[in-house]
Amino acid sequence: MLSILRALRDDGPVSRAELGDRLGLTRPRLTGEIERLIKAGFVAEAGMAASRGGRRSTLVEIHPRLRFAAVDLGAGSIDVEVVNGRLEPLVAYRESADIRKGPKAILHRVGELLAKARVEGVYGRLDAVGIGVPGPVSFRDGVPVSPPIMPGWDRYPVRELLAREHGCPVVVDNDVNIMAVGERHGGVARSVDDFLFVKIGTGIGCGIHLSGDVYRGVDGCAGDIGHIQVDAGGPTCSCGNTGCLEAVFSGAALVRDALVVARSGASPALAERLTRSGELTAKDVADGAAEGDVVCIKLIRDGGRRLGEVLASLVSFANPSMIVIGGGLAQLGHVLLAEIRSVVYRRSLPLATGNLPVVLSELSGRAGVTGAAVLASDAAFEQIP
Amino acid sequence: MLSILRALRDDGPVSRAELGDRLGLTRPRLTGEIERLIKAGFVAEAGMAASRGGRRSTLVEIHPRLRFAAVDLGAGSIDVEVVNGRLEPLVAYRESADIRKGPKAILHRVGELLAKARVEGVYGRLDAVGIGVPGPVSFRDGVPVSPPIMPGWDRYPVRELLAREHGCPVVVDNDVNIMAVGERHGGVARSVDDFLFVKIGTGIGCGIHLSGDVYRGVDGCAGDIGHIQVDAGGPTCSCGNTGCLEAVFSGAALVRDALVVARSGASPALAERLTRSGELTAKDVADGAAEGDVVCIKLIRDGGRRLGEVLASLVSFANPSMIVIGGGLAQLGHVLLAEIRSVVYRRSLPLATGNLPVVLSELSGRAGVTGAAVLASDAAFEQIP
Repeated sequence: MLSILRALRDDGPVSRAELGDRLGLTRPRLTGEIERLIKAGFVAEAGMAASRGGRRSTLVEIHPRLRFAAVDLGAGSIDVEVVNGRLEPLVAYRESADIRKGPKAILHRVGELLAKARVEGVYGRLDAVGIGVPGPVSFRDGVPVSPPIMPGWDRYPVRELLAREHGCPVVVDNDVNIMAVGERHGGVARSVDDFLFVKIGTGIGCGIHLSGDVYRGVDGCAGDIGHIQVDAGGPTCSCGNTGCLEAVFSGAALVRDALVVARSGASPALAERLTRSGELTAKDVADGAAEGDVVCIKLIRDGGRRLGEVLASLVSFANPSMIVIGGGLAQLGHVLLAEIRSVVYRRSLPLATGNLPVVLSELSGRAGVTGAAVLASDAAFEQIP
Repeated sequence: MLSILRALRDDGPVSRAELGDRLGLTRPRLTGEIERLIKAGFVAEAGMAASRGGRRSTLVEIHPRLRFAAVDLGAGSIDVEVVNGRLEPLVAYRESADIRKGPKAILHRVGELLAKARVEGVYGRLDAVGIGVPGPVSFRDGVPVSPPIMPGWDRYPVRELLAREHGCPVVVDNDVNIMAVGERHGGVARSVDDFLFVKIGTGIGCGIHLSGDVYRGVDGCAGDIGHIQVDAGGPTCSCGNTGCLEAVFSGAALVRDALVVARSGASPALAERLTRSGELTAKDVADGAAEGDVVCIKLIRDGGRRLGEVLASLVSFANPSMIVIGGGLAQLGHVLLAEIRSVVYRRSLPLATGNLPVVLSELSGRAGVTGAAVLASDAAFEQIP
């Protein structure tokens, strides 16, 4: 039944005959399942299919009335979309918000945005909500667990409160996992079963997709690669250890290093930008590199090498079929990618890298909400009695 | 059906009533399945159960006639067992053999040992064979793939030839995976779903058990952690790279380092052993450490630290619930274990290590054959029409 709903969600209206062929279901079995799904309000008839020679088959589609809310909370942003059963966005809001304001304020704002969509007639009621947060989550309990950059959110009952508010199933997951799910649904990892999604933003995290499913680990913190030590003599990390990957290379680390070379004058491109705007971002480093500033290029290469070393270890360990690089620092683009590839291909065994694409995310900013919508719809489908 | 057979294999004779309760199967469903399994020759009646108050239930058991062959090929050894349906060994052979003699010679010897068991009346025919080899394996194709220490074995049709010879299903896997399966069946990882089994022998490898199953990766080489770089300036590895984990710490590396400190006189304990026997083994280092030789203790600690650093990364990535240390170097015992624990607990985030036992294998030398027997029986069970 889940397979029928997923096929209609992902591939659109289809004749009963073709659907049966595609999923390998017998005619009576399929007819029975479709009847149940129509009765449950999840599938609708959609007219007659073109003839395949014999009797014409009726088209079925995911019910056009279905509505899912997809929420992606970042360290400094809220993304909210309401989508239909095909996961097409009907409305999308994006605004700045500091996650450190705490769960009450942030979830209140999410509620206001969803109420606005309802008032505008986008939906009458929601069939499920998917929400990603920038920290570790107990997927089973639907709560954040000791999230380092989310004060006040520890064990806050996000799922329970949203489920009560909207009267529907709610899925809570961490931001990197939902990005991986999104990229597999509509991006470069479409239908890839085993891949790593590496998010390089303020910090660094990794979404792990194994055998077609998100792998979350025993405590839900699998993929927390930002705190792997890459340089015993490196800078102190927010976690208290020294030389963690994200203390050496991440959005925050890159800005820190960029300020040093701008102030020392080692990088004319960054010095000029700092003078002009009074601050520096990762984009300034990317632009400097594009202009040929050697210090900017070196900053990106050094970071790519460190990340590549960690990824080479993970390739030896997990033997995935693809690595996707996403998050804000993916804008460092091909200089970064070239360095990561070079290290991964050199440091892992040929059998594991013979056919291992290392590629940039296609969905970039929309990966998170897309994945949240996928998880929301799956949760709704799984609750059909 | 698989669940019924596994329960009878792992837990022994049981009444139909209790089996139904344990597996959550209705009476008619269970009766039907049991009839099919009796007809297929995999299950037998085993008398009456003690009364539970109502009508007495009949006992069923895994058929006492079932026979599986379990083979564990090491770099320098052949282990062959023939077991019954409860995986109890009926005969066990262990002998030295150099895997580099090539597949024809080695598999011929395996065939001779199995023929000997048949002549001795241990079995009439085999129901399945499980075999582990010391190198990467394409599990799907049943062949070794580019195994570094197994010249002549690349893509050799091990499964096909053994299946033809014995007329039964055959499973081929790598030695570390079968050890992990064995440890989960009858050792310290019993019924643990997510754990890492780290084998430190001549080389280093890792068996990965996720969500209750062996995780093999896309090309079957997941867990190949021996070639993760731990020291850019370290010794050259057999793979051509420098500073790989197993070039820095493994059976071969430890003997190399032990010879250096024995010859230089830095370690009196090792110098004396070298003079006495003309060679050194990992056991000499373990014995030296037990006697308090500080250089021996340092060798083990340094190795444990390197391995611990790699394991800390893998804990951050995979968030397992247990790490099991096995293979020949597990005899380095508690000095090694203490160092690994110290690094892993210090370098990984609290959420992942709050409840993470790092323990020695319980089955040690028998882990491999035990796992091969488990995989063989699963293969036989899965083939029942």
